[in-house]
Amino acid sequence: MSMKPIEYADASPEVRAVYDDIKRTRAVPDVNNFWKHLAHDPAGLKRTWESIKQVMAPGALDPLMKELIYLAISVTNGCGYCIASHGAAARKAGMSEAMFGELMGVVGMANETNRLANGYREPIDEAFE
Amino acid sequence: MSMKPIEYADASPEVRAVYDDIKRTRAVPDVNNFWKHLAHDPAGLKRTWESIKQVMAPGALDPLMKELIYLAISVTNGCGYCIASHGAAARKAGMSEAMFGELMGVVGMANETNRLANGYREPIDEAFE
Amino acid sequence: MSMKPIEYADASPEVRAVYDDIKRTRAVPDVNNFWKHLAHDPAGLKRTWESIKQVMAPGALDPLMKELIYLAISVTNGCGYCIASHGAAARKAGMSEAMFGELMGVVGMANETNRLANGYREPIDEAFE
Amino acid sequence: MSMKPIEYADASPEVRAVYDDIKRTRAVPDVNNFWKHLAHDPAGLKRTWESIKQVMAPGALDPLMKELIYLAISVTNGCGYCIASHGAAARKAGMSEAMFGELMGVVGMANETNRLANGYREPIDEAFE
Amino acid sequence: MSMKPIEYADASPEVRAVYDDIKRTRAVPDVNNFWKHLAHDPAGLKRTWESIKQVMAPGALDPLMKELIYLAISVTNGCGYCIASHGAAARKAGMSEAMFGELMGVVGMANETNRLANGYREPIDEAFE
Amino acid sequence: MSMKPIEYADASPEVRAVYDDIKRTRAVPDVNNFWKHLAHDPAGLKRTWESIKQVMAPGALDPLMKELIYLAISVTNGCGYCIASHGAAARKAGMSEAMFGELMGVVGMANETNRLANGYREPIDEAFE
Repeated sequence: MSMKPIEYADASPEVRAVYDDIKRTRAVPDVNNFWKHLAHDPAGLKRTWESIKQVMAPGALDPLMKELIYLAISVTNGCGYCIASHGAAARKAGMSEAMFGELMGVVGMANETNRLANGYREPIDEAFE
Repeated sequence: MSMKPIEYADASPEVRAVYDDIKRTRAVPDVNNFWKHLAHDPAGLKRTWESIKQVMAPGALDPLMKELIYLAISVTNGCGYCIASHGAAARKAGMSEAMFGELMGVVGMANETNRLANGYREPIDEAFE
Repeated sequence: MSMKPIEYADASPEVRAVYDDIKRTRAVPDVNNFWKHLAHDPAGLKRTWESIKQVMAPGALDPLMKELIYLAISVTNGCGYCIASHGAAARKAGMSEAMFGELMGVVGMANETNRLANGYREPIDEAFE
Repeated sequence: MSMKPIEYADASPEVRAVYDDIKRTRAVPDVNNFWKHLAHDPAGLKRTWESIKQVMAPGALDPLMKELIYLAISVTNGCGYCIASHGAAARKAGMSEAMFGELMGVVGMANETNRLANGYREPIDEAFE
Repeated sequence: MSMKPIEYADASPEVRAVYDDIKRTRAVPDVNNFWKHLAHDPAGLKRTWESIKQVMAPGALDPLMKELIYLAISVTNGCGYCIASHGAAARKAGMSEAMFGELMGVVGMANETNRLANGYREPIDEAFE
Repeated sequence: MSMKPIEYADASPEVRAVYDDIKRTRAVPDVNNFWKHLAHDPAGLKRTWESIKQVMAPGALDPLMKELIYLAISVTNGCGYCIASHGAAARKAGMSEAMFGELMGVVGMANETNRLANGYREPIDEAFE
């Protein structure tokens, strides 16, 4: 059973408050499907949004850097929705096509060498401890 | 059976040439275990190193950004050796403890929301296509 | 090449015997696509069904608990077919929307903290050994 | 570089407040290593704990059910620390050895059939949409 | 944003040279979508193709064996595109339906027992070190 | 809590029967740790062994090919125990060091290109359907 997205007009005040904060924080006219489905669990919606807002805020890493990392993980995990949404978010945050190409190069090699290290049963060098 | 690392003194000229290039490129006195085990397959050693050298070179993304992405993927995949080695490499490239904390925050939330998107069977928004 | 599902009318006696047992055990009028494709390997069909039947039977864990665990793993692995089919099975076994929301909360946090534990290279507490 | 755990005696007031809440909520004399390492990022520590506390509280699913799901995911992801810590937590919450055996049976079959569904490229049955 | 495939007619000389080598090596009239998208990053296209060409060439393992391994990994990772393309490549290299059925049996059991070994926290036997 | 392995001398007749069949089938003097821990769930032990015996028997794929596939998946999933045990099994079945090196090359490239296909959101070519 696919759940229906909960549109703003049909949302409870608790859900609307989260939607409003997302729209304000991101300066977007509407929230994307991710939130409209998660809204079936209002407590989860609020918790997830507040965590995302805290984690993705500018800090020691800037928003572009954070979006690139988010995209790299979504690609690694093969999450189709997340690749599309965080690809768009990364582009909005300044990711150029050249950056995307290099990002994919790193993602590919990391996924390759992670397996080489496992398969060769590499002991951790003392210098890395 | 654990393979033994191949030390420089015992390496073939083909393997030594790769070791020399790693040491020169990275300005390190010796190569780490990853390469010493991979050296059992000289063609794979050479190919992997040349790919890594190309992918990790400065470009549209700087070396620190690339190391942060590498570390994020290694953590996502749970590769113990890679977390240790790329954690060290990221620190050497300039990752502060504050950056590491924020990186882990993004890694955690991306792995969480990747599953939420899957579980709620989110359809991709038209705006992301 | 996508394989065609093998319908009951076209199935061998060996395959029909498995289909009959699935229909009887689950009280359903037809088997779902999973089995109709797996039927291209009759030995695998029989083995997989008998394993599933044994594993999902009521025991120390009741059928709802087992379906919830099955769904949580399918979401973690991002298997679209399995999320749809085991979501339906879990609902049939009694999963309410509130349970689904809480399940997704646990799935999300487990996938997050699994990576935090890896990334921070947590040593196992003596009390857990 | 392995980080050192931050013990209560060395913790900032902000970190101590989280430790105190964990100890009170779980009725344990000390927090486990997971939290002592995460404490290097006090904002992440507080956010993660509050999320875990909300998600693992009794609700439509009881605490044992939630711990079983947590354990099943940790096993699927191969997180050694999490398997040890959530195995202990599940036992404390009432998981018997028979339950553990059945849990592992479901985990194994779900990981198997997730791949069979992918490999046979199963189309989702209309009844599951 | 979905990228558009880069067709031969629109490709740069650098990209055309890779396309030509793929077509010649594989004796196919056109390259498949994988390469046409990767062509947005010409350096990555060239590096990936040369690595694939080296790795998939006949050696101690024959091409069919290599395609079977490639397919098994693609199924394990749940990569839809790769399951389709390497399923086709394996059939072209000689995979019969009986081989595919047995391959899927091994893939399923390996994914199952990988989790049983993790969940039971199996210590490695001395004989395997 | 780590479980203790169940040795033959301490095993129930039901468990001993499985151990005897493993020893006879594989011509080994004792079973390895995997089975000695799984023996805590005698029904799971019997089911898993019978499935493995069926799946790994010679058929359209020979035992060496099956062991290579098993090892490739174990490396992809990062299961330390399984990499050690199936590495040993593959060597016993005839895997040379050259084969292992080539296997790792394929494993690495498959894990890399699986992510490239996801990240570039590759549409499946008509020829592969």
